[in-house]
Amino acid sequence: MVEKRTPIAVSAAIKQVLEHAFPLGSENLDLEDSYGRILAEPIVASTDVPPFNRSPYDGYAIRSADSAGASGENRIGFDVIDHIGAGEVSAKMLNAHEAIRIMTGAQLPDGADAVVMFEQTVETPDAITIRKPFEPLENVSLQGEDVQKGEVVIDSGSFINPGTIALLATFGYSQVLVAKQPVVGILSTGTELLDVGDELVPGKIRNSNGPMIVAQLKRMGFRCKMYGMSIDRLDESFNVVKKAAEETDCLITTGGVSVGDFDFLPAIYKRLGAEVLFNKVAMRPGSVTTVAVANDKYLFGLSGNPSACFTGFELFVRPALLKMMGAGKLFLPHTKAVLGEDFTKANPFTRFIRASYDGETVSPAGFNKSNAVSSIARGNALIVLPGGTRGFHLGDVVDVLLLGAEEGTDKWQL
Amino acid sequence: MVEKRTPIAVSAAIKQVLEHAFPLGSENLDLEDSYGRILAEPIVASTDVPPFNRSPYDGYAIRSADSAGASGENRIGFDVIDHIGAGEVSAKMLNAHEAIRIMTGAQLPDGADAVVMFEQTVETPDAITIRKPFEPLENVSLQGEDVQKGEVVIDSGSFINPGTIALLATFGYSQVLVAKQPVVGILSTGTELLDVGDELVPGKIRNSNGPMIVAQLKRMGFRCKMYGMSIDRLDESFNVVKKAAEETDCLITTGGVSVGDFDFLPAIYKRLGAEVLFNKVAMRPGSVTTVAVANDKYLFGLSGNPSACFTGFELFVRPALLKMMGAGKLFLPHTKAVLGEDFTKANPFTRFIRASYDGETVSPAGFNKSNAVSSIARGNALIVLPGGTRGFHLGDVVDVLLLGAEEGTDKWQL
Repeated sequence: MVEKRTPIAVSAAIKQVLEHAFPLGSENLDLEDSYGRILAEPIVASTDVPPFNRSPYDGYAIRSADSAGASGENRIGFDVIDHIGAGEVSAKMLNAHEAIRIMTGAQLPDGADAVVMFEQTVETPDAITIRKPFEPLENVSLQGEDVQKGEVVIDSGSFINPGTIALLATFGYSQVLVAKQPVVGILSTGTELLDVGDELVPGKIRNSNGPMIVAQLKRMGFRCKMYGMSIDRLDESFNVVKKAAEETDCLITTGGVSVGDFDFLPAIYKRLGAEVLFNKVAMRPGSVTTVAVANDKYLFGLSGNPSACFTGFELFVRPALLKMMGAGKLFLPHTKAVLGEDFTKANPFTRFIRASYDGETVSPAGFNKSNAVSSIARGNALIVLPGGTRGFHLGDVVDVLLLGAEEGTDKWQL
Repeated sequence: MVEKRTPIAVSAAIKQVLEHAFPLGSENLDLEDSYGRILAEPIVASTDVPPFNRSPYDGYAIRSADSAGASGENRIGFDVIDHIGAGEVSAKMLNAHEAIRIMTGAQLPDGADAVVMFEQTVETPDAITIRKPFEPLENVSLQGEDVQKGEVVIDSGSFINPGTIALLATFGYSQVLVAKQPVVGILSTGTELLDVGDELVPGKIRNSNGPMIVAQLKRMGFRCKMYGMSIDRLDESFNVVKKAAEETDCLITTGGVSVGDFDFLPAIYKRLGAEVLFNKVAMRPGSVTTVAVANDKYLFGLSGNPSACFTGFELFVRPALLKMMGAGKLFLPHTKAVLGEDFTKANPFTRFIRASYDGETVSPAGFNKSNAVSSIARGNALIVLPGGTRGFHLGDVVDVLLLGAEEGTDKWQL
């Protein structure tokens, strides 16, 4: 009676999912709305940075040649002939033994090739003396030393972080071309599901996967369309899935993908003519995670177990959505850490365990059955234990995937 | 002529800032709007989880006693008398050698104390046989085994992540009490500043710090009030700062805190009667970072150098805003990593270097002067090199602070 499914490895499953990503195109946004988006064009330096030779300090601009031979016993004097604040330009040209008072960030005046910091001078009204010689270009930030005009400073496909915003502002990008975001739909299936505001009744539980996925999408900066909760009737569920698949780039369902009598997603995929990429992954929790494609749109069938649902989203949905936007860094950040307590269960399949990572040690966040809803709210990482292993002990070094990072990494390393 | 300032250690500066945080109060939000906020109440389990004894598998509920003595040579038979989907409850009570077909997540019927998985049975119409004995409660998820009613499952002050949302939904929190968010103002000072849409003119640069801080705040989920750009005139700047300080919980200014002739913030703080907590920190970049408090409101005077401004925000502003919301985890996540290239500059002060961290190795993201705007957009971490050190080499293990993490850590470890 039970349908026989062949599990595929997690890495193979991710690869298959990513092969089916289709691009969403791009759109122009105002710079101020672009944080968190994916660049659909490279950032090109429209000017040198710095755009002119400038002073990195508050002090006096001089001609370095005039300082030759200066020492404690042979202080050399300069007449102060002008005063430049940041943003100002001096109309004067330095002649021998003249200095111009200059503020941090201001453009070096003509003739000057060095800056003496305030604390390197003795100041008198309209004059200074110095006690050391200066090299040509000493204390000068050179035009273009950071970036040269025309250089590609950030590649297309990069995540726009606050520093990227600074760079875009510097180069005058009041608008920026970014990838369009996918339209994602969410449908929770299961007769047992109640809404969050409902009173519990025997046999039923409140739908936690739907709100959780909304938050996982929000964490990525996406909004989504809700298709409510479908009860376990085939025709009704088919109609909702069909409509949702037409209106979105990616439909995420929770539940209904196992081999139970009311797990209708397999039948619905068949009726839709969808190509099922896989329906069994060698992972715990979430081995029934199913991904299908219909009309170049993703149908993610996540498990109804909250931990499995959460993990399925982070492992498969997240990189797929990022790939659709042309992002370069698709995967959860990976590191290694010392296991903080024993975990002695056998791992026939690759096991993902919600965990707390403190930068050195990683420990399971709680009681780790796939339905352990309390552990899901704790912790900031997933421990990954390879399949075919028998148990791990305090002090073992294990693989860790970090959750909630703004940007991921470009390689799947497990 | 130069005002003498006494630098304080970074850790002491952070401590001083946090001592001046005042709480903002709380507000009720709909669950769906609560991602990214800070809990202002603990989450208390309103029910046991699971709320009833339930089946973790698709299979058959039986009385374990009936299975005693079962083996390959002695298969024991059960009549299948009912069928329970998830969310349904059977009206029937199991008697000897009866079984009820049950789906994953469904409530165990009366009389049953074990579940036989499909694959452990041979099925015939209306009956099954099994070949092994079952223990009492075998394959049963026990009521309350994950969480018990009345238990505090998540503390007040926690960040609401997607897993927290799942937990809130499970326990029927259609509304949740969260900390109010601070109203933050941003004012960029400097005659040299142009808007992002302006053409460059000699001596001037575009304002990149303002948009960058907006994005740093947006990354934390905050909106802000913009007070534009104030040019370097004392009276005018004072009026803008005064107004902004009245309208916000926290005013961030960029520039104007050094000892240059047009650095008016020190004079403005004085006129406002603000208490200056410090105006010199033993760090690079950003040693001129100044924090003041007036009428229980923060005045953050960040450096005008983009890297210094960025770092000052992450080190001082971020934890202060989180503390105002009662958050438990105030600080950037910390780890250690292997330096990927030499960094041989001396570090008279603690040095923060924008860097790329790949989970193992960390490397400076570029040319690391405090005004190096191109490196600011690359990388996901800050290398921290202690003051009083002379240089570090490829392979050295160094301290790293991670940027862009959804949630930080509860201890400042440097």
